[in-house]
Amino acid sequence: MKKFEEKSIRSESIYEGKVVSLKIDDVILPNGKEAKREIINHPGAVAIIAISDEGKLVLVEQYRKALERSIIEIPAGKLEKGEAPEQTARRELEEETGYGCQNLTYVQSFATSPGFADEIIHIFVATDLYQIEEKAALDEDEFVSLMEVTVEEAEKMVKDQRIFDAKTAFAVLWMKLNKA
Amino acid sequence: MKKFEEKSIRSESIYEGKVVSLKIDDVILPNGKEAKREIINHPGAVAIIAISDEGKLVLVEQYRKALERSIIEIPAGKLEKGEAPEQTARRELEEETGYGCQNLTYVQSFATSPGFADEIIHIFVATDLYQIEEKAALDEDEFVSLMEVTVEEAEKMVKDQRIFDAKTAFAVLWMKLNKA
Repeated sequence: MKKFEEKSIRSESIYEGKVVSLKIDDVILPNGKEAKREIINHPGAVAIIAISDEGKLVLVEQYRKALERSIIEIPAGKLEKGEAPEQTARRELEEETGYGCQNLTYVQSFATSPGFADEIIHIFVATDLYQIEEKAALDEDEFVSLMEVTVEEAEKMVKDQRIFDAKTAFAVLWMKLNKA
Repeated sequence: MKKFEEKSIRSESIYEGKVVSLKIDDVILPNGKEAKREIINHPGAVAIIAISDEGKLVLVEQYRKALERSIIEIPAGKLEKGEAPEQTARRELEEETGYGCQNLTYVQSFATSPGFADEIIHIFVATDLYQIEEKAALDEDEFVSLMEVTVEEAEKMVKDQRIFDAKTAFAVLWMKLNKA
């Protein structure tokens, strides 16, 4: 796990933000030369493949400023300090969809953009969903609309790029593989 | 695609780098309130699911400074200015693996971290691989080692987190679905 390690000899903090921070490290390469690495730090996130009793995938549409468009995604959210990923998953599922779940199973974790960011996203599958009585509040700058679709409908959304992010692309393949 | 649009009323450039840039936009939310959005701009990338004549997946191990570890990924690389994604895919496959391909098919594109970055990655499948005579040079700060694994071996690498990034997690599910 340390193959071709790049040791930092200097690190400069450029920006400390609400969601991301940016630093530039000077590193020593395996051949002894120096290079610069631009690194985004991010608290990490969870995403939930929530499957209704009818076998439908629960999705949320929201505006993504970085892309300047809205896209349709599986529910997700940033890890809060001191919060276990499973706890974040339950919280975000409730906030974004109004569903609680009887079963929450960890699937896997992955880095979204290892070339420049340390963001790791933890994927869970939620089943045996139930409507919670008092829907938890979204973050005050968060606006989402909810939908439930079959795998075939989700695949169509991939084709016309309404589904357009890595975790949801992964989720659609995962559902297809695990449907039977 | 403009649902819940967030219009920028101010935009401040914080950093313009070699790989990424960072800006902060003040936006008007759908409810009329203001919010700040931290946005990373990235040129975009391609990644290649390269399958050998024996049905094995071609992978590269490299050190990822942002994660402070090496991980095993499908070949990938940043788009150069004026380069079509298909051209980038052929170039990166040659540089990182020494393989050319007779067939290169577009699969789909996705944003890796839509919450804070505009990076879009275009996924291709390469088959009918052939060893190129003079292996193209890697970037001077790039060190990778090559391997070819079965789907089952790749799944084991997902389990022990040696495969640990979104595009390769996607690729392993894609191969599993398309093996038959």
